[in-house]
Amino acid sequence: MDWAREQRTGLAEALMCEGKTAGQIDGILAEAGERRLLLTRLSAEKLASLPASRRSGLDYDSLSRTAYWGETPPAAADGAVIVCAGTSDLPIAREAARTLVFFGHHGPLIADVGVAGLWRLMERLEEIRSYPVVIAVAGMEGALFSVLAGLTASVVIAVPSAVGYGVAAGGQAALHSALASCAPGVLTVNIDNGFGAACSAIKILRLRRDL
Amino acid sequence: MDWAREQRTGLAEALMCEGKTAGQIDGILAEAGERRLLLTRLSAEKLASLPASRRSGLDYDSLSRTAYWGETPPAAADGAVIVCAGTSDLPIAREAARTLVFFGHHGPLIADVGVAGLWRLMERLEEIRSYPVVIAVAGMEGALFSVLAGLTASVVIAVPSAVGYGVAAGGQAALHSALASCAPGVLTVNIDNGFGAACSAIKILRLRRDL
Amino acid sequence: MDWAREQRTGLAEALMCEGKTAGQIDGILAEAGERRLLLTRLSAEKLASLPASRRSGLDYDSLSRTAYWGETPPAAADGAVIVCAGTSDLPIAREAARTLVFFGHHGPLIADVGVAGLWRLMERLEEIRSYPVVIAVAGMEGALFSVLAGLTASVVIAVPSAVGYGVAAGGQAALHSALASCAPGVLTVNIDNGFGAACSAIKILRLRRDL
Amino acid sequence: MDWAREQRTGLAEALMCEGKTAGQIDGILAEAGERRLLLTRLSAEKLASLPASRRSGLDYDSLSRTAYWGETPPAAADGAVIVCAGTSDLPIAREAARTLVFFGHHGPLIADVGVAGLWRLMERLEEIRSYPVVIAVAGMEGALFSVLAGLTASVVIAVPSAVGYGVAAGGQAALHSALASCAPGVLTVNIDNGFGAACSAIKILRLRRDL
Amino acid sequence: MDWAREQRTGLAEALMCEGKTAGQIDGILAEAGERRLLLTRLSAEKLASLPASRRSGLDYDSLSRTAYWGETPPAAADGAVIVCAGTSDLPIAREAARTLVFFGHHGPLIADVGVAGLWRLMERLEEIRSYPVVIAVAGMEGALFSVLAGLTASVVIAVPSAVGYGVAAGGQAALHSALASCAPGVLTVNIDNGFGAACSAIKILRLRRDL
Amino acid sequence: MDWAREQRTGLAEALMCEGKTAGQIDGILAEAGERRLLLTRLSAEKLASLPASRRSGLDYDSLSRTAYWGETPPAAADGAVIVCAGTSDLPIAREAARTLVFFGHHGPLIADVGVAGLWRLMERLEEIRSYPVVIAVAGMEGALFSVLAGLTASVVIAVPSAVGYGVAAGGQAALHSALASCAPGVLTVNIDNGFGAACSAIKILRLRRDL
Amino acid sequence: MDWAREQRTGLAEALMCEGKTAGQIDGILAEAGERRLLLTRLSAEKLASLPASRRSGLDYDSLSRTAYWGETPPAAADGAVIVCAGTSDLPIAREAARTLVFFGHHGPLIADVGVAGLWRLMERLEEIRSYPVVIAVAGMEGALFSVLAGLTASVVIAVPSAVGYGVAAGGQAALHSALASCAPGVLTVNIDNGFGAACSAIKILRLRRDL
Amino acid sequence: MDWAREQRTGLAEALMCEGKTAGQIDGILAEAGERRLLLTRLSAEKLASLPASRRSGLDYDSLSRTAYWGETPPAAADGAVIVCAGTSDLPIAREAARTLVFFGHHGPLIADVGVAGLWRLMERLEEIRSYPVVIAVAGMEGALFSVLAGLTASVVIAVPSAVGYGVAAGGQAALHSALASCAPGVLTVNIDNGFGAACSAIKILRLRRDL
Repeated sequence: MDWAREQRTGLAEALMCEGKTAGQIDGILAEAGERRLLLTRLSAEKLASLPASRRSGLDYDSLSRTAYWGETPPAAADGAVIVCAGTSDLPIAREAARTLVFFGHHGPLIADVGVAGLWRLMERLEEIRSYPVVIAVAGMEGALFSVLAGLTASVVIAVPSAVGYGVAAGGQAALHSALASCAPGVLTVNIDNGFGAACSAIKILRLRRDL
Repeated sequence: MDWAREQRTGLAEALMCEGKTAGQIDGILAEAGERRLLLTRLSAEKLASLPASRRSGLDYDSLSRTAYWGETPPAAADGAVIVCAGTSDLPIAREAARTLVFFGHHGPLIADVGVAGLWRLMERLEEIRSYPVVIAVAGMEGALFSVLAGLTASVVIAVPSAVGYGVAAGGQAALHSALASCAPGVLTVNIDNGFGAACSAIKILRLRRDL
Repeated sequence: MDWAREQRTGLAEALMCEGKTAGQIDGILAEAGERRLLLTRLSAEKLASLPASRRSGLDYDSLSRTAYWGETPPAAADGAVIVCAGTSDLPIAREAARTLVFFGHHGPLIADVGVAGLWRLMERLEEIRSYPVVIAVAGMEGALFSVLAGLTASVVIAVPSAVGYGVAAGGQAALHSALASCAPGVLTVNIDNGFGAACSAIKILRLRRDL
Repeated sequence: MDWAREQRTGLAEALMCEGKTAGQIDGILAEAGERRLLLTRLSAEKLASLPASRRSGLDYDSLSRTAYWGETPPAAADGAVIVCAGTSDLPIAREAARTLVFFGHHGPLIADVGVAGLWRLMERLEEIRSYPVVIAVAGMEGALFSVLAGLTASVVIAVPSAVGYGVAAGGQAALHSALASCAPGVLTVNIDNGFGAACSAIKILRLRRDL
Repeated sequence: MDWAREQRTGLAEALMCEGKTAGQIDGILAEAGERRLLLTRLSAEKLASLPASRRSGLDYDSLSRTAYWGETPPAAADGAVIVCAGTSDLPIAREAARTLVFFGHHGPLIADVGVAGLWRLMERLEEIRSYPVVIAVAGMEGALFSVLAGLTASVVIAVPSAVGYGVAAGGQAALHSALASCAPGVLTVNIDNGFGAACSAIKILRLRRDL
Repeated sequence: MDWAREQRTGLAEALMCEGKTAGQIDGILAEAGERRLLLTRLSAEKLASLPASRRSGLDYDSLSRTAYWGETPPAAADGAVIVCAGTSDLPIAREAARTLVFFGHHGPLIADVGVAGLWRLMERLEEIRSYPVVIAVAGMEGALFSVLAGLTASVVIAVPSAVGYGVAAGGQAALHSALASCAPGVLTVNIDNGFGAACSAIKILRLRRDL
Repeated sequence: MDWAREQRTGLAEALMCEGKTAGQIDGILAEAGERRLLLTRLSAEKLASLPASRRSGLDYDSLSRTAYWGETPPAAADGAVIVCAGTSDLPIAREAARTLVFFGHHGPLIADVGVAGLWRLMERLEEIRSYPVVIAVAGMEGALFSVLAGLTASVVIAVPSAVGYGVAAGGQAALHSALASCAPGVLTVNIDNGFGAACSAIKILRLRRDL
Repeated sequence: MDWAREQRTGLAEALMCEGKTAGQIDGILAEAGERRLLLTRLSAEKLASLPASRRSGLDYDSLSRTAYWGETPPAAADGAVIVCAGTSDLPIAREAARTLVFFGHHGPLIADVGVAGLWRLMERLEEIRSYPVVIAVAGMEGALFSVLAGLTASVVIAVPSAVGYGVAAGGQAALHSALASCAPGVLTVNIDNGFGAACSAIKILRLRRDL
């Protein structure tokens, strides 16, 4: 782990568990010791393979496959709102929310506001507009990104999700919708990268704190 | 030309001019004689290369690159509405409209109702809903297709257009948005295929006439 | 669930089970209560994970992975015919048929009429032509779409299926055949989207009822 | 030029002019001297840049962009039939025909038998079946390949052409249709490779002569 | 099954088992009765799910996943040679060989003659050249196709195989090598389609018988 | 034009000239009248086709193909720094800079700091870090995005440019580098979308003003 | 196996175990007898399926899935350094290291020097520069390749790894970064091909021995 | 220009003229003054736009589109051989040769040794083997790379060229053949990157000088 990253970029490095064995993760947690650490993409199977003593030190959320190591997150000051269309996008949306909370920000979640039911999105619009940053999570055709960017002055960060089948499989259709949006001001991260979206949101929120 | 197609499928064959020389087009028009014929994708350069006598028999529209050969189209009975986001989609939208008119249908055009300016679409919604079939033309991220399908009970035919750059170049992003729409009931044709969309719309309109 | 969708678009929202846990599906059915609901992409494994009391309220079809919740579908009035080439396309073809029936329409199925055995398709042609809408399901090279559109005046909705291997794997070859058809009047939906094809067919059928 | 290729593989090397300058082509023809040579993909512009004395020794066909250098082709013995859907495929179809003739075979052309007008293909079926090898040229969705292979016992060589737009642009959709054909016995060459299809047809025809 | 296909195209339809359930396969075999039938892509698991009485009527080869139903194949007259680079291509190479034998042809196999060890291919060249048709099976970069076509006057049918990783995964690199070969006279079938290559080889062989 | 967009999203709509004729642009400028307007992707040829009286009202920059219509931009308060690797990226970098200036922000440009000459980037690092937002423009392999995000706490907006050849042609390689960056906190816009990057940067800058 | 390859190309053939059954591997080892042999991509499952007597003759490394058959590797003379960004790239990095050692070279490994933590790479730069050949292993966006090539005069061989998700899945993003590098002098091998990178490194090292 | 690059990486930066205006190139040459500089991808049109005085200082080669600025290249000591299949690959092959010469190395060219005429390659094999590094340039299917790597112990650097049509268009088929080669020890650079291949060859050659 790059323990010095927080000094340099303002955000501590997180532990991406995909592609690492339980043994490797265990070793990194031992090395972390008292330091706080966010774990992402930690499957329930891999969690179960960790020593029980290590597991007990983790605050795990199975839906987002994230875990907190170390002390309770600091009290939240400001935050970004997370918007998604439905149940299938929740794992990614919650990864973003849990990342915000870990670093001391609010991450409220507004689900079930997809484009196929536009008036439900309209009903929540004032609430969405009240946040400086909106993280939008959508798969399939990703029309939500453009609709949101056309309706609000907030910064919109699009997280395409790998939800869908046929031409939407893997999230490429949603990714391209985010990048090609007819509404200027949409910023995009990699498919399923709720963590990265939250990191960028935090950087933006902190610009305001620094004043 | 397949002069018997109208008997078989209800729609006369059109003359797709792309990939044909001016000489070949001239020959087909000579063969057509008194028969009415719709010409598509006829560039201004190719039109200029036709003999003047032939040109004078053509009712040409440069924006849509379509031409009518033969008698004036029949009076329109019913129709489909064509909806698009802006100026760049007009050539395709008009190709659809001119095809509808050639075969005896209305093809009113509602432009400038893109998703980035959603309330303008909302203002025209009642008008759009009054047509049994909606032909939607959109490039870039193609969010318009899902928004329309979520707001109306009409049949929605999506025509992705090759308008855009980067990941939207060539129309693939809009095509995938149409196919992967979260709103059921979107039907899709090939990129820039305004003619095909109109043909399908006509088939649907005629189902009602046949009762 | 968007319980208001029927009022707005004429078709009630269906429950897409892929990407949802058994617990989430159970919750939605509890919320549905007396309302009728169509479930799609419900695997046998997920069905088996539902509480027995919930399972007993479902009319499940394992081939199409669809289930009906609530009252028996209404008596069918009109319908669309579903045509496919063979055994491998049956799951998608039946998804379309079951969707038609759920919403009160006939959905007769004509299988084994692939292009490699063209005369078998020819023998059934009159029957196919008698329906206003034809839903064609085909994988591999998808030649069936163009052949059908060249032989009938009915509206043809193409459902490319992910049947095939090599360049046909995933259904892209069939999808492109549908979109690029040399026969005008082919409308396309996403790969394996039998449900969406049926929804569009129903919209078209209802245009005739509304007269 | 590989002047020894005929001894080794039975077919003399042809001169592919694309990617070569007029000067380089002129030099190769000088080197060829009395030897016969087939030139392919020779644009009219490049032809015009050759010295007049060289041009006069060439039998050029502008549609197929092919030229014969040297003596008149030998009298034809047997042949392969070339089938295509329409005017736009003629350049490729004629490249195949001219290659057959150059090497001493018949190469009759049956155009305008596309799948959208299936009965026209049916009317010519007996004639097509009378040839041992059928070269089928088709762009767009390439349904012709499967239809032909399902109707004849002849060897079918598919030449996908780069005719079409949207998803058919460049010929990939037709290529994939050829490769994924539901009718076994379709052999494929590269997009627009009429020359290669003819070379293979000649190899097959010569297998019969060698008995 | 299309029992009439042999009359029409000269080759009986085979039973592609992928995408069919054991129950469906069992039903087709019952329907076949005394007729001979070739089964392809029959996994060992699916075979084990067939009733024992049915299994005992099948001559199964696990490497190629093919089975013969009915009488012993007829004595072989002529044949095509099958050439491949190594162990990983054997399943596809044997599918071709077994198809040839089922329909009454020789299908000798020359393995381990990849391009990385060119002299081993050279040692077998005379033997390869003695066959009118060569079926070449290769994955990875597929250089074998061009090398063979440059060294022999026989008809070369390329079968790209899905052997390889990285850019070769799925067989696309080998497929493109076959289609883009610098040696004219390479004919190509779909990735892993040993069956189709053999069907085409048989059609070619029979052209000679028919004289 | 959507003249109401500024009220809704905080940024006035710009006039994207690509895909519009000189006549259409002229009409929109006439409609704009006294309103300020930013024109993007206006080629020198199209500019030359505008009436001279209209041209004289435009402040045109040929490198970035942008023009200002109307009053001089307001005095700049805060700004974002634009970083790129070299001469070829300048058109896109300047499009971003001119957009920032048009809307009242600084847009200083640091060019020639590509990854192949890392120490030159290091020499400018303190200057770069002093801005809250960094817009990075890079083509080819796009390594600059990750290097910058690893070295600064500022918000990094990546603009992949279509600079490069082979696998880098069109900008996809750089786009994927931005999205897949190993350094969290990189936000991405479409290829060559300097305008969109600047719009997002402005939204972020204004979040600070609003406090 | 091609036992003569060492004489011809200087490197003995290795046994690629992917795509081969345990039985086939066992047979090749029996044939090898006293000869030394390197096995690559040997999964733990396949190893466990070998006869115990055979297994005992193998020096297996589970992380890299490589095994040595036969005598201990010769003492190392010179070597190439292997550089990677982190834990997930270790399997590929070690495959390269084990290949170097098998053929008598050093293969030291420097891990955890990714671009997101550039100063850690800087700290090891002198050590890296001391080797004539650098093998760089990186997934995700592969920025490491360009950074290394810009900082050292050594030959850089890039091994893109299939580490990452979204647009980085499968390793294509890293591959394209290697090929499109703005720093001249980057040489690339296939995704995950640590073995091939080491083979090329050995060829380069031996050029110096041969003087 | 990065004038310090030679100190750092051993090779002076070259001036890539694509994407730069004649004015920008002129300015860089003025800045270069007495320093030697290699210009690549300089089209004849752009050359003609330079001031005559500047042009006279350039040693230009139109086939490779390269130019030398400054003193005559140093006398060559050692070198790499460049091998290609034919006339169309010459521009790229010469770019590599001219780069070698500019930096003081031999760059002999062996053309016309494509795989379709294998014996011609065999005739030159001893000559090829006598060089420590072989740069192979090939388009279409790129089989030359594997054949060469299987026949020589030299280091093989593959340069895929954008020569070919259909699936070979743009050079992707040749690139994938290089990367997926069944012969270990092939190193690859970007499509058409003769310059980069030469730079790497020089780095390798210099490793020997440094001993």
